[in-house]
Amino acid sequence: MALIVQKYGGTSVGNPERIRNVARRVAEFQARGDQVIVVVSAMSGETNRLIALTKEVAKHPDPRELDVVVSTGEQVTIGLLCMALKDIGLKAKSYTGGQVRILTDSSHTKARILSIDEAPIRKDLEQGNVIVVAGFQGVDEQGNITTLGRGGSDTTAVAIAAALKADECQIYTDVDGVYTTDPRIVPEARKLDRITFEEMLELASLGSKVLQIRSVEFAGKYKVKLRVLSSFQDEGEGTLITLEEDQNMEQPVISGIAFNRDEAKITVLGAPDKPGIAYSILGPVAEANIDVDRSVQSVGHDGAADFSFTVARGDVDKALKALDAAKAQIGEHVIETDSSMAKVSVVGVGMRSHPGVAARMFRTLGEEGINIQMIATSEIRISVAIEEKYLELAVRVLHKTFGLEQQSGA
Amino acid sequence: MALIVQKYGGTSVGNPERIRNVARRVAEFQARGDQVIVVVSAMSGETNRLIALTKEVAKHPDPRELDVVVSTGEQVTIGLLCMALKDIGLKAKSYTGGQVRILTDSSHTKARILSIDEAPIRKDLEQGNVIVVAGFQGVDEQGNITTLGRGGSDTTAVAIAAALKADECQIYTDVDGVYTTDPRIVPEARKLDRITFEEMLELASLGSKVLQIRSVEFAGKYKVKLRVLSSFQDEGEGTLITLEEDQNMEQPVISGIAFNRDEAKITVLGAPDKPGIAYSILGPVAEANIDVDRSVQSVGHDGAADFSFTVARGDVDKALKALDAAKAQIGEHVIETDSSMAKVSVVGVGMRSHPGVAARMFRTLGEEGINIQMIATSEIRISVAIEEKYLELAVRVLHKTFGLEQQSGA
Repeated sequence: MALIVQKYGGTSVGNPERIRNVARRVAEFQARGDQVIVVVSAMSGETNRLIALTKEVAKHPDPRELDVVVSTGEQVTIGLLCMALKDIGLKAKSYTGGQVRILTDSSHTKARILSIDEAPIRKDLEQGNVIVVAGFQGVDEQGNITTLGRGGSDTTAVAIAAALKADECQIYTDVDGVYTTDPRIVPEARKLDRITFEEMLELASLGSKVLQIRSVEFAGKYKVKLRVLSSFQDEGEGTLITLEEDQNMEQPVISGIAFNRDEAKITVLGAPDKPGIAYSILGPVAEANIDVDRSVQSVGHDGAADFSFTVARGDVDKALKALDAAKAQIGEHVIETDSSMAKVSVVGVGMRSHPGVAARMFRTLGEEGINIQMIATSEIRISVAIEEKYLELAVRVLHKTFGLEQQSGA
Repeated sequence: MALIVQKYGGTSVGNPERIRNVARRVAEFQARGDQVIVVVSAMSGETNRLIALTKEVAKHPDPRELDVVVSTGEQVTIGLLCMALKDIGLKAKSYTGGQVRILTDSSHTKARILSIDEAPIRKDLEQGNVIVVAGFQGVDEQGNITTLGRGGSDTTAVAIAAALKADECQIYTDVDGVYTTDPRIVPEARKLDRITFEEMLELASLGSKVLQIRSVEFAGKYKVKLRVLSSFQDEGEGTLITLEEDQNMEQPVISGIAFNRDEAKITVLGAPDKPGIAYSILGPVAEANIDVDRSVQSVGHDGAADFSFTVARGDVDKALKALDAAKAQIGEHVIETDSSMAKVSVVGVGMRSHPGVAARMFRTLGEEGINIQMIATSEIRISVAIEEKYLELAVRVLHKTFGLEQQSGA
């Protein structure tokens, strides 16, 4: 008998028929002897409807009251799913975040979970109930309703799995797992059976949006076995996200290729070539809450240097404004922006023990005549900025070079 | 400085604009120094939308989970109203039933309030907050969400007024008070400035549906001053519902005339004329959950008696079935039904000290050629069943006879 936490997103519970489908799936797990805790989101569209309503009522909706309103979306779903479960003969009980209780800090609309009281849920499980918990919400020390921010239901599921030491936390979504890359670009892309938390974090933050990144961090921290599955398919094992140490089989060097289309390159020309200039430039940009991917500082000439970095395209104007305000520190300079950039990243924990990945990546792109404009790396990731028009080609050749369509790594 | 509880129904908070209107009204009370607690219903249509959703999900929606779903309607309204209040510069705080906490029994969908914790509300009031409480809901001893049944928000308002010893409980609705009778039938009908709880109960149960009857009972029991007002008019004092003892002015004999169109008369012909026969007939009908208005047993003949009573027209079939099942106790009999009946009632606490009201009522109707088919009475009410076609005429002549269009009673 296993204890399983299952999370169903808004699309999976988007209408009464889908809610009844979820109930049937839960019934199958219970029938084979598992204890099941289900975490649900609001029905798709519901959260947006509620937010629109608040904007009609108030110019500046108060955050505490916004949480009171928005948290009703998940409350409706837990009640409906429990009814559906009871209607097909199961014992079931719903819990709001406050009823669990999921204690959070008081940062309304983006609260962090502090602790979860597992005792009442444990007792109801032992009496044969399916437990249905509202995702995305909690209460603070004073009993105020809080919400966890976008994608918070994933975090709720992982936190409950951690608190109850569940055997597995299953995230049901509209894809059947994590792929080596986007199958719309590389039809040979392969669903990964396993991936490590670290790799998942690099893939998620680079655009493969399957799981809320916070929930992956949380799962890694508390060693919760996470599995991504499709709620629209009955077959399939999805993708298991685990600690590296759990994996016995040989590690492929590269697990996946992520990419991001909406990149822009900003180059500061002729900034003084002195220690600390990188901070003088990137500091003000980061302070303006703009994500910057670290860049290569080009070689200096005549005591000046050209310094490039990439930001999301939507952030270009904000970044330019921040640089303009910081003129005094940076010194006299000219700025060039190029908004036709894309970023491609190869990700894999195997990189640590296999040198030469970067060389192979650069050579492969070079052979296709793709010019690498910038490079950024982490311990398990190499990212390059290239012209956007080469994006699909780059992803395809890298996918092939690193043998990702095969069953084992290159 | 007064402490006022205000309750706004679904129509009064039916859309964002109306919610902002309620906020402005509350602001006026606060500006003149009153402390205000607001109780709100779900936005009109919302409760029905949620109930429809549950019926799409489950054939037999579980009552506990039904309460979880339906209670979100009021939760949305409290959040929205608080935002609107803060948006115009007031301090405000919302409370769900569980946050108050409004402790109820565990009878889901029809729970009864057991106690209210006034301490947190009192504290927030003293800090200058407007308190906004979700009507219609509470929690039981185990923390399960409960609802109070139809019209429960009135009861919530009265219960909170009782717990906090409020100076007045104001029920805002879409009429501007309680009238001597329906102005659509008698254009001269007069809004009452005052009425006693007892009278209100008799008028409410007879069809003048302004206030939830349970909330009037509650207000009477806990001596809460209740006032009915229009939420769509800025002027007017509405109708104050008080204990009889509060009233110094001379009591009018009759306060109002209630009526009910949907009546049917059921007559059991030739039942044995023996003690207990009334119970043999009415017992089974009452057990089938049918409201019966006590009736006059006609004089017996040859050891048999004809026994008549009235029920709501929609209950006729159910009543006939109940009588058929009880054949053994009632004995051989024939049943006649007449579905073209109406009931007219004169109500007034003054009746107690002024005999002759019944005689005057019967004479007035007789003069108009209206045949009285049955009579039922309480200490402060006389009801007659008449043919439905005479209903408007009867109400008009009685309204005139008892001088209800004038400022003081006859």
